[in-house]
Amino acid sequence: MALFKKSPGKVRLLVLGTGGMAQAHATAFAKDPRVELVGTVDVMPGRAAEFAKKFGIKKHFTDLDKAIKWGQFDAATNVTPDSIHYPTTMKLLAAKKHVLCEKPLAENFKLANEMATAAEKAKVINMVNLTYRAVAGLQKAKQIIASGEIGEVRHVEASYRQSWLVGNHWGAWDKLPMWLWRLSEKHGSKGVLGDVGIHILDFTTYAIGMMPTNLQARLKTFHKAPGDKIGEYVLDANDSASMIVEFQNGAQGVIHASRFMTGYGNTLRLNVFGTKGGLEIQNDHDLTTLRVCSGEDVHTQAWRDIVKTEAEPANYLKFIDAIVSGKNGDPSFRRAADLQKILDACFTEEASKAVKL
Amino acid sequence: MALFKKSPGKVRLLVLGTGGMAQAHATAFAKDPRVELVGTVDVMPGRAAEFAKKFGIKKHFTDLDKAIKWGQFDAATNVTPDSIHYPTTMKLLAAKKHVLCEKPLAENFKLANEMATAAEKAKVINMVNLTYRAVAGLQKAKQIIASGEIGEVRHVEASYRQSWLVGNHWGAWDKLPMWLWRLSEKHGSKGVLGDVGIHILDFTTYAIGMMPTNLQARLKTFHKAPGDKIGEYVLDANDSASMIVEFQNGAQGVIHASRFMTGYGNTLRLNVFGTKGGLEIQNDHDLTTLRVCSGEDVHTQAWRDIVKTEAEPANYLKFIDAIVSGKNGDPSFRRAADLQKILDACFTEEASKAVKL
Amino acid sequence: MALFKKSPGKVRLLVLGTGGMAQAHATAFAKDPRVELVGTVDVMPGRAAEFAKKFGIKKHFTDLDKAIKWGQFDAATNVTPDSIHYPTTMKLLAAKKHVLCEKPLAENFKLANEMATAAEKAKVINMVNLTYRAVAGLQKAKQIIASGEIGEVRHVEASYRQSWLVGNHWGAWDKLPMWLWRLSEKHGSKGVLGDVGIHILDFTTYAIGMMPTNLQARLKTFHKAPGDKIGEYVLDANDSASMIVEFQNGAQGVIHASRFMTGYGNTLRLNVFGTKGGLEIQNDHDLTTLRVCSGEDVHTQAWRDIVKTEAEPANYLKFIDAIVSGKNGDPSFRRAADLQKILDACFTEEASKAVKL
Amino acid sequence: MALFKKSPGKVRLLVLGTGGMAQAHATAFAKDPRVELVGTVDVMPGRAAEFAKKFGIKKHFTDLDKAIKWGQFDAATNVTPDSIHYPTTMKLLAAKKHVLCEKPLAENFKLANEMATAAEKAKVINMVNLTYRAVAGLQKAKQIIASGEIGEVRHVEASYRQSWLVGNHWGAWDKLPMWLWRLSEKHGSKGVLGDVGIHILDFTTYAIGMMPTNLQARLKTFHKAPGDKIGEYVLDANDSASMIVEFQNGAQGVIHASRFMTGYGNTLRLNVFGTKGGLEIQNDHDLTTLRVCSGEDVHTQAWRDIVKTEAEPANYLKFIDAIVSGKNGDPSFRRAADLQKILDACFTEEASKAVKL
Repeated sequence: MALFKKSPGKVRLLVLGTGGMAQAHATAFAKDPRVELVGTVDVMPGRAAEFAKKFGIKKHFTDLDKAIKWGQFDAATNVTPDSIHYPTTMKLLAAKKHVLCEKPLAENFKLANEMATAAEKAKVINMVNLTYRAVAGLQKAKQIIASGEIGEVRHVEASYRQSWLVGNHWGAWDKLPMWLWRLSEKHGSKGVLGDVGIHILDFTTYAIGMMPTNLQARLKTFHKAPGDKIGEYVLDANDSASMIVEFQNGAQGVIHASRFMTGYGNTLRLNVFGTKGGLEIQNDHDLTTLRVCSGEDVHTQAWRDIVKTEAEPANYLKFIDAIVSGKNGDPSFRRAADLQKILDACFTEEASKAVKL
Repeated sequence: MALFKKSPGKVRLLVLGTGGMAQAHATAFAKDPRVELVGTVDVMPGRAAEFAKKFGIKKHFTDLDKAIKWGQFDAATNVTPDSIHYPTTMKLLAAKKHVLCEKPLAENFKLANEMATAAEKAKVINMVNLTYRAVAGLQKAKQIIASGEIGEVRHVEASYRQSWLVGNHWGAWDKLPMWLWRLSEKHGSKGVLGDVGIHILDFTTYAIGMMPTNLQARLKTFHKAPGDKIGEYVLDANDSASMIVEFQNGAQGVIHASRFMTGYGNTLRLNVFGTKGGLEIQNDHDLTTLRVCSGEDVHTQAWRDIVKTEAEPANYLKFIDAIVSGKNGDPSFRRAADLQKILDACFTEEASKAVKL
Repeated sequence: MALFKKSPGKVRLLVLGTGGMAQAHATAFAKDPRVELVGTVDVMPGRAAEFAKKFGIKKHFTDLDKAIKWGQFDAATNVTPDSIHYPTTMKLLAAKKHVLCEKPLAENFKLANEMATAAEKAKVINMVNLTYRAVAGLQKAKQIIASGEIGEVRHVEASYRQSWLVGNHWGAWDKLPMWLWRLSEKHGSKGVLGDVGIHILDFTTYAIGMMPTNLQARLKTFHKAPGDKIGEYVLDANDSASMIVEFQNGAQGVIHASRFMTGYGNTLRLNVFGTKGGLEIQNDHDLTTLRVCSGEDVHTQAWRDIVKTEAEPANYLKFIDAIVSGKNGDPSFRRAADLQKILDACFTEEASKAVKL
Repeated sequence: MALFKKSPGKVRLLVLGTGGMAQAHATAFAKDPRVELVGTVDVMPGRAAEFAKKFGIKKHFTDLDKAIKWGQFDAATNVTPDSIHYPTTMKLLAAKKHVLCEKPLAENFKLANEMATAAEKAKVINMVNLTYRAVAGLQKAKQIIASGEIGEVRHVEASYRQSWLVGNHWGAWDKLPMWLWRLSEKHGSKGVLGDVGIHILDFTTYAIGMMPTNLQARLKTFHKAPGDKIGEYVLDANDSASMIVEFQNGAQGVIHASRFMTGYGNTLRLNVFGTKGGLEIQNDHDLTTLRVCSGEDVHTQAWRDIVKTEAEPANYLKFIDAIVSGKNGDPSFRRAADLQKILDACFTEEASKAVKL
């Protein structure tokens, strides 16, 4: 696939958005000697100027259109609020800019698909910042599964475990806007499913190299405050989400996520069981464990820790790699759209049909 | 509830069935000084006589009716094939005998319910041999949850993990009748769901003290032999079973079981997450681990091992306890019928409705 | 070895001592249908009477001599203070009574050896209550090592981990006499070495089936209170004890114990490494884990949990078994004397010679 | 301390030695944009030329003296055989070159001390490549201990666990020179103590921030081949080494290492117990676990995993950092000399005096 390739010289990057996550992006890109931060945009007056000053960026804008008109950049990293990803990215694509977009790519499959299609037509680098790709051990897990060491996948158990609705380790969920908005659909939240369910879906399907072909799902919002409301926040977004999925080869599995998995801060756990072995990977920040039972060990249930793992670089680096090489990186917009399709399905009435007991 | 109470003297026990599991029953009951094995029944000529000789039992019968006519026994332990549980137990109940019945109580809820109702009317001790009640730590887990230490249950992850379709640790599944019948519906199998799914359902609902109110389920039979057949055995019973359930208080959870969970011999794993803590219990034979994160530890995700656990006695002892005290034991026929209702629901088309992706 | 064998009828047991541990003994023996508690002795006025009443024991004495003169008992369980073990046991042996003695058998090897020799001459059952013999998994570990599965033992790491000098889980060590005496040599304490070091020495050497042939040791008493004194208790007993030992086959190892191993309540941990495999066992109350790496797994460092373990019966039962069978049980007085020899060596100046750095 | 500071421009580096480890050094330094590989030396004809070609190095020498005479380099990395470290490093120091030296710095404390003193006098950057400083979690462990979170250190258990004398995971120890020389004193080996014992000593004392003040030790060489010889290799170097040490504050501990710790590939394990908590860190390649029990958790033995750890950069980077900043890096020659003193003591007869049992 011949995409627009980077001309010699540094990649000139526009930072779209100036919030906390944008600062993380800017900090990461600033370390890459192949990148020059050339502009930043924020619609809130003064914020772009301040951000530009902090990161030594020459140009700042309060309007993406003006930045595009100026045009002296090769690529943009889109760190705007979730609902703004679509309109801003579409403009960038129209201007033939490479785009790294924060997750979720869009609010639903229709928009995400449109974005993926537009990016493919524009032949620009298009990536989504699904951060858990960089987990030490995920690449190794994927390689082990792809090598056939555990045979054909038969059964999967995957979960994303958080507990910030119980513990105070991430601050007061009932006071801080950064958590409250995640509990409210009107504030753009798709609940735990949209927030981290997408990560465990990506993690799982990336590791096993297969997508689900059908699913059943259950979303649950628990009563957490009088009138299910705190200030302006209506607490209606899902807190727990559970799925039964069937994969392309007929394997089945459960995938679930909750903000009530007390005792876990931010844990992804994946168990993959095949016809010749089993594999388990668990990650929480820098702590990853990966173990395998295969070969003759399937008869004795002996497990060995995989002690040599090689983490993928962060998406920031992979985005620049892609621009430099002219070969699109993974996870792409297309990948994000495919995941969005699964999330959308979870919200359908049909997915949650249950038998009363 | 005033049931028939044991008259002074030993409990006179009839052993119904003479197979491997019946020998386990006889061996266990023989150790109890409160019990006298007085009779045994097997319809296969000669088997009851042989069994009687081995265990020093005076009377043996090839017909339950004759044993009932003779009548010199207080209680019976029913270790017949699954499909024979219903007719034999109903006769025993009609004769006002206490009955310990192997699991599953019956082939479906209708029959199980009939048996439970009959037992209640007969006012005899009625128990089902759900063996995992005796797991060290299960009582402790139940106590911890009941005490409110982990708050109100919100999310549950439970699984029964086996791998005898992959490893040879339990012998050749594709040659031995003891495994082959479990793969074939015509041979009376309800698959992994009926075989061990019932155990993890009992384990989970017993620990949390709540039953599901509705469920979604997926059963899967994998291709395992040419023509999905080995000798007389049509391999049509489910190998993997996954459920999403909602419990009486609105908590949700995933419960699943598979014979393809490679790396696990015979493991029950239960994670219960509540508004004030989390609890994890895992068992495989004599190895049980139970750990809890609660109190201030929910803010730091510290877990403590519970090192003092007290195992419940085996059902054999509890059955005799119940006869001696006149107070029915747990798990009762009613309990088994309630579990059977859940299993039945899993087999309905409605439970497995899924969204295509 | 033909010892005095039990005459028909129940074993008539005298309980020597009436403290907390004596109650544990009485409770355990009372459950054994082969035993009748016939008498109890305590030199403190009134205590034996009270104890006799509580346990339904007919005879009580304030003097062992009187009990011996009365003589209507077959065996005694000696639960007197450590320093009283020797004189009381010697009298019981002279009277040809079977004796189960609490650990430590005596205060030093000389006395312990005398007791062992006397018991052997008297040809009575003689056992010491080293309780950790009953740990689930220890028998299995011993079998695995004895079977040659891990080859010839080369290296050992063993520890007894307590933390009651840091945590309050066992009460206030600086206020309760039950802990304070353990910190004071004048109150008969040999420190952590005598208190639990003996257990890990027994555990280790029992598991590997070899005794040390020489040792280096370091005992340490930490400053814990003003003037190293609390009330009448001079805090001079060792808090940490470390040994390097060489075993009979030339294998070497470290064995250590401390009351400052924070994060461990009462944990025995043993790692045994051989020419064909490694084995690890850890116990704290009812929680035991046992795992093995052997066979082809030594090349991949895969470990398998041993899930089927069979606990030895408690010493109470083994003592009665021994009396009934006429075959002495293990651990015997001789065993305890052999262990005492090791403990004594740790206290010598020679054992702790070190190089200044 | 004002050391020679780097003049503007790249650090010009000489690579001394061309073996496997030298290639690792060259590869690492080549990635650092602050470094230019300018020369290489190997006394074996042709090897330096080949190495220079492979890494694009302009100058190559068969004699260090010639390279020094040429002089166009700022720093050298010394990857010569262990016994050559001393003479080569002394020449480099005399020429005022910064030196990164492979471990062990020298064969004994006398030489190591001389080197440290010479480096200090020369006021050049001097570092030793103790690689485990870069273990994720070690810095965090050190910080936690230094912060006082676990109180004053009381008891330590540390080990370096290898098993290449049992498993074949690192190749055939009895055939490959790369392993055989490690078993033979004449080939320059100090056994497991010199090979990896030094790492666990550095790891432990770095983490707790204290050195031992005295020690007892036991070294053991096991019989491994007929006549304890394979080809030219006399198998006389130690296979297992155990120490009891006392630290500066009076804390005690056991530190041991063995090539017979079957089931462990290359594992450093450190347990530190203090008056307010306990800490455990274990590392094998990319797999590090770090957990802590502190605060109120000392009363319940709850442990929390530390999931956020920040690895120190490798010594290669720290060496260049030091040259650029003019501030010497850690571990320095002085540090290495201090460690060597401990190793030397282990080999004294006095350290291994034991009591016969």
